[in-house]
Amino acid sequence: MNVEALYHRHKQNWAFIYEQNVVYLRLRTMKNDVESVQVCYGDKYNWYKTEQKADMYKLLSDALYDYWEVQVQPIFGRLSYRFLLHAGDQSLYYAERWCKEYAAEYDFGNFEYPYAHERDRITPPDWVKDAVLYQIFPDRFANGDHANDPVQTEQWEATSTKLNFFGGDLQGVLDRLDYLTKLGITCIYFTPLFQAETNHKYDTADYYNVDRQFGDNELLKKLVDECHQRGIRVLLDIVFNHSGHTFPPFVDVMKNNRLSPYADWFIWRDEWNKQSDTPAYETFGYEANLPKFNTSNSELIEYLVNIAVFWLKTCDIDGFRLDVANEIDHRFWRTFRDSVKAIKPDVYLVGEMMHDAMAWLQGDQLDAVMDYPVRYSAIQFFAARRIDGKEFADTVSAQMVAYPLQVVEASFQLLGSHDTARMLTLCQGNTEQLKQAVLFQFTYYGAPCIYYGDEIGMSGGDDPDNRRCMIWDEDRQDSQLFEFYQQMIVMRKQYSALRYGGYRFLHAEAGDHKIAYERWDDSEHFIVAMNVSEQAAALSVSVKDTNADEHWVDVWSGEVLIAKARMLAMELPAFGYRLLRRHTTHNAVHNTGKGA
Amino acid sequence: MNVEALYHRHKQNWAFIYEQNVVYLRLRTMKNDVESVQVCYGDKYNWYKTEQKADMYKLLSDALYDYWEVQVQPIFGRLSYRFLLHAGDQSLYYAERWCKEYAAEYDFGNFEYPYAHERDRITPPDWVKDAVLYQIFPDRFANGDHANDPVQTEQWEATSTKLNFFGGDLQGVLDRLDYLTKLGITCIYFTPLFQAETNHKYDTADYYNVDRQFGDNELLKKLVDECHQRGIRVLLDIVFNHSGHTFPPFVDVMKNNRLSPYADWFIWRDEWNKQSDTPAYETFGYEANLPKFNTSNSELIEYLVNIAVFWLKTCDIDGFRLDVANEIDHRFWRTFRDSVKAIKPDVYLVGEMMHDAMAWLQGDQLDAVMDYPVRYSAIQFFAARRIDGKEFADTVSAQMVAYPLQVVEASFQLLGSHDTARMLTLCQGNTEQLKQAVLFQFTYYGAPCIYYGDEIGMSGGDDPDNRRCMIWDEDRQDSQLFEFYQQMIVMRKQYSALRYGGYRFLHAEAGDHKIAYERWDDSEHFIVAMNVSEQAAALSVSVKDTNADEHWVDVWSGEVLIAKARMLAMELPAFGYRLLRRHTTHNAVHNTGKGA
Repeated sequence: MNVEALYHRHKQNWAFIYEQNVVYLRLRTMKNDVESVQVCYGDKYNWYKTEQKADMYKLLSDALYDYWEVQVQPIFGRLSYRFLLHAGDQSLYYAERWCKEYAAEYDFGNFEYPYAHERDRITPPDWVKDAVLYQIFPDRFANGDHANDPVQTEQWEATSTKLNFFGGDLQGVLDRLDYLTKLGITCIYFTPLFQAETNHKYDTADYYNVDRQFGDNELLKKLVDECHQRGIRVLLDIVFNHSGHTFPPFVDVMKNNRLSPYADWFIWRDEWNKQSDTPAYETFGYEANLPKFNTSNSELIEYLVNIAVFWLKTCDIDGFRLDVANEIDHRFWRTFRDSVKAIKPDVYLVGEMMHDAMAWLQGDQLDAVMDYPVRYSAIQFFAARRIDGKEFADTVSAQMVAYPLQVVEASFQLLGSHDTARMLTLCQGNTEQLKQAVLFQFTYYGAPCIYYGDEIGMSGGDDPDNRRCMIWDEDRQDSQLFEFYQQMIVMRKQYSALRYGGYRFLHAEAGDHKIAYERWDDSEHFIVAMNVSEQAAALSVSVKDTNADEHWVDVWSGEVLIAKARMLAMELPAFGYRLLRRHTTHNAVHNTGKGA
Repeated sequence: MNVEALYHRHKQNWAFIYEQNVVYLRLRTMKNDVESVQVCYGDKYNWYKTEQKADMYKLLSDALYDYWEVQVQPIFGRLSYRFLLHAGDQSLYYAERWCKEYAAEYDFGNFEYPYAHERDRITPPDWVKDAVLYQIFPDRFANGDHANDPVQTEQWEATSTKLNFFGGDLQGVLDRLDYLTKLGITCIYFTPLFQAETNHKYDTADYYNVDRQFGDNELLKKLVDECHQRGIRVLLDIVFNHSGHTFPPFVDVMKNNRLSPYADWFIWRDEWNKQSDTPAYETFGYEANLPKFNTSNSELIEYLVNIAVFWLKTCDIDGFRLDVANEIDHRFWRTFRDSVKAIKPDVYLVGEMMHDAMAWLQGDQLDAVMDYPVRYSAIQFFAARRIDGKEFADTVSAQMVAYPLQVVEASFQLLGSHDTARMLTLCQGNTEQLKQAVLFQFTYYGAPCIYYGDEIGMSGGDDPDNRRCMIWDEDRQDSQLFEFYQQMIVMRKQYSALRYGGYRFLHAEAGDHKIAYERWDDSEHFIVAMNVSEQAAALSVSVKDTNADEHWVDVWSGEVLIAKARMLAMELPAFGYRLLRRHTTHNAVHNTGKGA
């Protein structure tokens, strides 16, 4: 065995409570190195009488590792444990302090989950794993009120530049709620609505007021109420990392320097020097108009936290997308979470982070992050076609085990946003490739988010081209694509297996651009298969637990496939995809255990 | 390379801020597998202009791994990085999302330390790494006031049983402060002083009052004041995991069951049933007289936190040793820390935990834990002699890299306590073996703690034998041992190199019971060598950077050793030990870098 490859550590994604008093344990081993694993567990205060063994199942694998999982119930809340690995003739105990072939007794150095406190369970809001999100960039979605149009508002659908304005507003969104309802989404995510100079509004000037170009606070409240009546939740985007340069406290600092009462709200760089090429204050990136906040100032902390409290209380907002969340200190997020969850326990706190976010996702700070790593895999596989099915499955799998299960289930899944080129453009305009990516997105964990207009086939390269105005002329909308999105939303809403059932890759090979995976729960079982290439191809996947009389029905074509010798064979056209749902003549369903 | 053995993850012991704006990065590789490692780092917003490379040094090794370390300064607080490993002809980039031989550009998937916030730096109190602790079990240390002796107080030095009392008290400690000053300790750790039924007082009845058998609150305040005047700090032991069964709220619950206003302060097990064999409430372990607290009850949280606040405010206590800290939820500790640190920022919060405590040591909960893993290695090597020098060095090294450096420096180092047999007894009465263990303890990281009486050669097996009364008859004290402890304390106080200099094993071989290690800083350089066997032995250690004219002086014998061909040869008698201090003819000192 590659003993050096073993990894397990208390907490994080390795040992966590998913359901009350049930601890999920995971172990990493080198890929294809270990044949089976058991966990030996008990109460350390009575090990000899309480020791039990449980088999672990192989949850999934990535490029380098196999990941094993098991659920155990601690005795009186307390859990002491060690792993027992088997490969050929060799057996090996793996504990926190040692690795050895024989463990006769309760040795010092077991792993411990000392007490399974319900209060330490990570609990993102339940509703998120069932949600379908829709991202609106307000200036570009719909103009419902020309009276609030900024000076020099462009003609709708003129070329988007970094600087121009198009007059989109909240009335426009209100006017289009029927459209969103028809599409089927259950939650709107608005990029910033608060007063700011730019068209994107990430340079906040006034956190307490909706920008005049979008309407006012009353209108936002009306919009949220209307959404809630339709079963649609609303997320706002808040920037706590920095303000805009027109934010009055920053203006005061620019005027009065260190004498400003707000001097400590920002971060000073060396000596104050207005003549310097780089600003004398910390900024977001190198943007002089985005001064970074000093989130260790207690007055400022209170000020910032109260912004979220205000919007929760006045407009009953359902969550916040937190810009540049990773560049703000952990203590701020703890204070923030405690304050907003006290008002609305199921408010969704999702951070913008592109890297490993485990340190923010321990239950004390954020609920989830935007899943840029999975997006990156999807872009590489479905659009750029730079990676094969194996690398796609490996990288997606690595992300699936990177966090506790409930965090993965609450993740914000995106294919594109106002910060990226549109998916259809990355697919070089090939709608079938886009559909494959969307099929993946809607049959993966987390809450899928549609970037406005993707559903009708809008194109757009990098910012500002990705922020073109929404096309409302139905003749210029791709109605077939719209219907595809509608179907995906219906399927996802109807079947919990597609949202949080088990997930296993059935086909993912090196040098091969076909993939297949299954998703299942106690009542349903699906197989998704795709061929990301110009050549039609045949694919056979193993359905080992399927009975002879089971049929698999193609959700779109209605074609019925029958497994033979436990293999399911199918044809996939160029850039073809299938979503197969198992039909049985009896009610029994595929039972492979939680992860097998 | 064994790619599967690589490990690094954002935060924990792998990426942490030790000094302001300096990030320590550590990487795990398979032992003896990689020849050199560099870190490539920069600002992700300007990678091309900011990318730099820095060499990592091999910090230390354990049984399976090498650990590499480097300190880097983020640019404008932001740090993006990946590692570059070399072995023979092979080079490999290792990043968060990939491992590959060639990285031409700033690829998606670097590791990130997004912003080095001073506020997220883990900051145990500075004084701890300089402290020498002394643990007092109050009933057995000194009886200074017979008026408060419990009924049926035993004769001093009668046999210790689980149940008897000896009348030790705070006046006794006051009377013996000269003794402690003479010994040289700088901090007293008292096991519980509060009112309780038992002699050990872990079954608290009244958290707000010193037990009558020990004195009263006024006397404690007087004792703390007197200690502070002598430069001695005071730690109290508090039990937040459970109360005693005579704690009035629990008495009320026993009387009024669910109708008690305190019913939710405890944890109910199934139905309330006084006739049940196991109690109907959760307990510590299986002890019916120690009902476990429900630390999710907000009233109780306030009650418990206020206990510590009370003792800080009334007696100016310097820290708390927190009993069974690992079985209390993380949220409780966060609230607790914030409350007590607001009153006394340098209060020391040290938890009783025997396993990996990383999840409690992220800066938001505890400062440190009692280092049972290192104690276990010391017992196995110096006393039981069940492991060789290699296993000792491997297991101690594993513990040295398990936490951020500042947490290791603030650890509570013990060889024994009221919960264990005494070290001298584990050494089967061989004082030389005890001295070796003490020499190790006083030349390791953290704050060494002396269990009362160990310094004068007291014996004692498992509880209750380890709680024998302190021997005050000087004729029966081992005065040579006392002097040895005095010398160790003086040395440790005098030389910061022995407290928080670099640490490297120079000799630790399989099948060999000799060890040698060095400790150094900018001004001093020491070598410690020991022979844990009945046979005298010769030992040579490499002192590769030593100049020809450098002498090493044995601190005890005054013998001068001179290195030849960069090797230092010495004789070690049976169970012999040496502490060698480098003398140079000029002021230049050994300069191997932080960890080399």
